[in-house]
Amino acid sequence: MAEPVIGILGGMGPEATVDLYREIIRLTPARRDQDHIPVLIYSNPKIPDRTRAILEGGENPLPYLIESARLLQRMGAGILAIPCNTAHYFLPQLAAAVQIPVLNMIEETYLALRAGHPDLRAVGLLGATGTVRSGIYHAVFERRGVSILVPDDAEQARVHAAIAEIKSGGHSHSTRQTLEAIGANLLCKGAEAVILGCTEIPLVVDQESAGFACLNPTRILAQAAVDWAMGKR
Amino acid sequence: MAEPVIGILGGMGPEATVDLYREIIRLTPARRDQDHIPVLIYSNPKIPDRTRAILEGGENPLPYLIESARLLQRMGAGILAIPCNTAHYFLPQLAAAVQIPVLNMIEETYLALRAGHPDLRAVGLLGATGTVRSGIYHAVFERRGVSILVPDDAEQARVHAAIAEIKSGGHSHSTRQTLEAIGANLLCKGAEAVILGCTEIPLVVDQESAGFACLNPTRILAQAAVDWAMGKR
Repeated sequence: MAEPVIGILGGMGPEATVDLYREIIRLTPARRDQDHIPVLIYSNPKIPDRTRAILEGGENPLPYLIESARLLQRMGAGILAIPCNTAHYFLPQLAAAVQIPVLNMIEETYLALRAGHPDLRAVGLLGATGTVRSGIYHAVFERRGVSILVPDDAEQARVHAAIAEIKSGGHSHSTRQTLEAIGANLLCKGAEAVILGCTEIPLVVDQESAGFACLNPTRILAQAAVDWAMGKR
Repeated sequence: MAEPVIGILGGMGPEATVDLYREIIRLTPARRDQDHIPVLIYSNPKIPDRTRAILEGGENPLPYLIESARLLQRMGAGILAIPCNTAHYFLPQLAAAVQIPVLNMIEETYLALRAGHPDLRAVGLLGATGTVRSGIYHAVFERRGVSILVPDDAEQARVHAAIAEIKSGGHSHSTRQTLEAIGANLLCKGAEAVILGCTEIPLVVDQESAGFACLNPTRILAQAAVDWAMGKR
């Protein structure tokens, strides 16, 4: 395979994997099939729950992540994209276990924010409890002068429950309303935009429905992958 | 990988590949990520145009199809699904080149039709010109007593152009109207239902919008793959 091939380590969850690939397709300038970028996807939903591993001592997903990443590398992927924010907690060890670059969705989100809103000083974070409590967004943003504002504990429990509803396919209009209301509260606390920091959230919330500025890390990751394949980075 | 893994040989086109995987997710009984089926996808949009190869002596896609199928087999796929109707012209040689079963979307569509409508005697076919002219649906359906009705030459050219519009991302409301009007003409000719026999077509046409009975081979293929993974076949 001489063509650049994007590898997607997915399944966390499956719908978010579909969403990332759909974004890659949309962001690719193409008039016919042959203009599109080859993509290898391993959707491995058996990877243990990331939040449970980080916060409750649940089974460690890292060996599964490494096995899946190495499979994509062996198949010919030239770069990896991982459509799961919480899995980025394990990124340093995962990236060290493969010889191909692994895109960092959190770093890419910071860079996109900086490019689009250079003066922004505080951003809200809606994400799984593992993403929020592990501080993986805080570590990337706060050392560069952007504060991360998060929901209070009761609200965070509702965000995590909403994400589980989306994963179960049982979400409703009220799931979206919950996420948007808690996002709006972050704006009241001083956030100037809200990161949709779990890949399930953009499946139900977008900037138009929310009525506030949103950063969609899935879309930002897709753009980074397309830019790589087009030789722009 | 002890779990059954569905392999998708896709990219023909990429959106149809997304559509098949989305259907697999929807048809899988799951409450959380870990309930879902592992899926390997090789979306290889560089596979040469199938209709051009069949009708105009264009580059033969078979070597690319075989290479892609073998890659999925090496990665651990236990079965292959191919979300491209026209590619099924090459299925006998492709299936002979791998050691894992390859689902036959056309055969599955016949079986689903028979299960749901045992008395049906004539069905319309909307598809790429390579699918229609090569007779791959005719061969499966007509020897079992179901007539295949196809658009006239001028209409078929419009169907093929509509498919190209969908692939280019440049389709509009009128693309859908064209397909639905030509489908409705097949009903006037005696068809009792219409096969959406190009995987791009269900991206814009469904039974509700069309107002006539439709068979969606992508969804039928997804159900067959899920049934396999659940041990039901």
